[in-house]
Amino acid sequence: MPITANNPKRKTWIETTPNTDFPIQNIPFGVFLTRDDIITIGTRIGDTAIDLGALHQLGYFKGIPLTDDIFLQDSLNDFISDGKKTWRLVRNRIADIFDETNETLKNNIEHRKIVLFALNEIEMQLPVSVGDYTDFYSSIEHATNVGKMFRDPDNALLPNWLHMPIGYHGRSSSIIPSGIPVHRPQGQKMINGEENPIFGPSRLVDFELEMAFITTDANHLGEPIPIEEAEDYIFGLVLFNDWSARDIQKWEYVPLGPFLGKSFASSMSPWIVTLDALEPYRVAGPKPIKEQFPYLQYSGKKSFDINLEVAIQPENAVETVVGKTNFKYMYWNMAQQLAHHTVNGCPINSGDMMGSGTISGPTEDSFGSMLELSWRGEKPVQLNEGGSRKFIEDNDTVIMRGHCEKNGIRIGFGEVASKLLPVFKK
Amino acid sequence: MPITANNPKRKTWIETTPNTDFPIQNIPFGVFLTRDDIITIGTRIGDTAIDLGALHQLGYFKGIPLTDDIFLQDSLNDFISDGKKTWRLVRNRIADIFDETNETLKNNIEHRKIVLFALNEIEMQLPVSVGDYTDFYSSIEHATNVGKMFRDPDNALLPNWLHMPIGYHGRSSSIIPSGIPVHRPQGQKMINGEENPIFGPSRLVDFELEMAFITTDANHLGEPIPIEEAEDYIFGLVLFNDWSARDIQKWEYVPLGPFLGKSFASSMSPWIVTLDALEPYRVAGPKPIKEQFPYLQYSGKKSFDINLEVAIQPENAVETVVGKTNFKYMYWNMAQQLAHHTVNGCPINSGDMMGSGTISGPTEDSFGSMLELSWRGEKPVQLNEGGSRKFIEDNDTVIMRGHCEKNGIRIGFGEVASKLLPVFKK
Repeated sequence: MPITANNPKRKTWIETTPNTDFPIQNIPFGVFLTRDDIITIGTRIGDTAIDLGALHQLGYFKGIPLTDDIFLQDSLNDFISDGKKTWRLVRNRIADIFDETNETLKNNIEHRKIVLFALNEIEMQLPVSVGDYTDFYSSIEHATNVGKMFRDPDNALLPNWLHMPIGYHGRSSSIIPSGIPVHRPQGQKMINGEENPIFGPSRLVDFELEMAFITTDANHLGEPIPIEEAEDYIFGLVLFNDWSARDIQKWEYVPLGPFLGKSFASSMSPWIVTLDALEPYRVAGPKPIKEQFPYLQYSGKKSFDINLEVAIQPENAVETVVGKTNFKYMYWNMAQQLAHHTVNGCPINSGDMMGSGTISGPTEDSFGSMLELSWRGEKPVQLNEGGSRKFIEDNDTVIMRGHCEKNGIRIGFGEVASKLLPVFKK
Repeated sequence: MPITANNPKRKTWIETTPNTDFPIQNIPFGVFLTRDDIITIGTRIGDTAIDLGALHQLGYFKGIPLTDDIFLQDSLNDFISDGKKTWRLVRNRIADIFDETNETLKNNIEHRKIVLFALNEIEMQLPVSVGDYTDFYSSIEHATNVGKMFRDPDNALLPNWLHMPIGYHGRSSSIIPSGIPVHRPQGQKMINGEENPIFGPSRLVDFELEMAFITTDANHLGEPIPIEEAEDYIFGLVLFNDWSARDIQKWEYVPLGPFLGKSFASSMSPWIVTLDALEPYRVAGPKPIKEQFPYLQYSGKKSFDINLEVAIQPENAVETVVGKTNFKYMYWNMAQQLAHHTVNGCPINSGDMMGSGTISGPTEDSFGSMLELSWRGEKPVQLNEGGSRKFIEDNDTVIMRGHCEKNGIRIGFGEVASKLLPVFKK
């Protein structure tokens, strides 16, 4: 089925600015609370939010097999369960409804009142109820930087790294949408040279600039997903800040991996940009350095050219972009991650999330964490306003943005912004 | 509020055998499919399953604040959300309904037909929809054995182990109820002395004899749970077989912890025995070897005397009990685990599960995994029938059982039994 929603020539009757992340070619999915305190599933064109629950009730999705309440829900999970064909039909239909040549909704003032909202009239929610969250570690630049700092500069990559997309199970319950602040966590830390750990606020709170993809129901217990089918089960992507407390993580992580150093919060952008919308931005990924097992070998372009940036905004000050990178640097792509995740028969469900791991590029200004940007605190990062930073300070807001651009069409993710509050006090 | 359901003198009009795991003092909770293909929440006395959805519709829970459909659900999550006071009221009421002196239901043939089932008329389901699953590593004997085998026999425990309950996030989607078979997983393995890994079926599939507790909604993002409140948020416990593929795990786990070596399956017993029912079996835990941080210090008895055993049953052969241990050996107790898990502000929800980690005792026949029982395969374990085992072979069934016993009252968990099938073929 053609993705007519991606037609680059299409224009919309909704007012948009030329540089918007959300032209009519994007059509992302999210969940929001309306001015009437109703939870609904929606999309967005320019700065206009569109209530899909209302559109459906008004009959605009006639002919597409959807249950009556599919958009009147507090998460996208059931819609995602409907599968790729349905997502595509709905996106194509939305493009059609808002095409500048289509006057049905455009000229219906009553319907427009019910369906369209200004952004300041709505409140974005978590778009999915995340069942399981997995975080990968798939940027070779990031893994190499970490290896250089904490292990052997000459043997920075661990032996398994080039053979498989290394990952770990993360905590779903602390995944929050953009805008929700995060408290500085407390925990145990071991000071170098001391015999016993100390307890207190983390002193090394960091962001990790990631993207995450959201899956649909993919397989039953025991059944691996072949790599050539993997992308069929990917609904879309979001920006993802995998907050990390480096000192807590360092003391706890041997031998079972990161735990409380990660599980205090992970922030996601609220609009899921579909894999369909990203089709035009496919690029070839990095060449494998070592031969990969057949279950990880693929054909075609499975990487995506997505520009990413991260900024720090101190309280009452302007922001400073501290890192710029690109999703295309990932050594292991999403299809490889999903094929690996299921090669042992692990079931993947609708609403599961998989983070890329920190996305670092090849240059010092393209790293995706303060750990790397300040090189463990040895090189503080100068801000335009508000001093310099080794790690994140109380009341700093961390903002991540991402977009693709080609032939004058820009498909963006909006942003994920979250403020670090001081330690929680009862 | 007194736990009248625990009255050791109470007898029931339901027929039970003297040695049952499910006397009227137990009253566990589970979810089952009835002979009419209806999903309901239920309990069990002796070998009789009781449909709580039907009991509630018939008015037997009058006076207890419960929504009409609280038991007509496919998981216990909403009931667990109702909180400890409600669980206690319901358990006390059930004890009263089935008390031998209460003739209301006993003499109502019509009601009995609707409410009571023989075990062969029902099919047990997963009792909770598991949001997040965490696995701890809290048995000092197990951690010491693993350290002796794979690290330094003289420094078997890692430096952090005595300071905190080490744990990691596990995979919820592969948690299955007793009775569901598991396929031998495939994956990457590194053979000692080789330069490159190989791919294929795991050759070292193992069980881990664990218990797991299930929580209710406990805190909001950012708020730690004080240790003295932690037990208020524990609904109950199950037996838990945390299937492990040792060869896959060994190659993948540095630096981010166990991943595909664990996520192919974890099996749980289907009846959740409440913490209330286990009250009489509290015992003091092991003395701390090192001083613990205040957030991990507790008063009173927070360990439980629960006898555990694990058996292997080869295809068409009798079973052999290969290990016997006890939940009381755990160095870190459940309250400590929950206080630690939330000290960074990580939110805990209804239906979350926390595994103890392999429970090993001090003697060679009290270890909780084949890894330890066969000491990495160096000492095969002799079976009564079906040869000997270093690890689990195709078509072996692994069975775990557990019970408490004191003053003639036995509170048991039934069993978790699951068969290992050969590698999945399409």
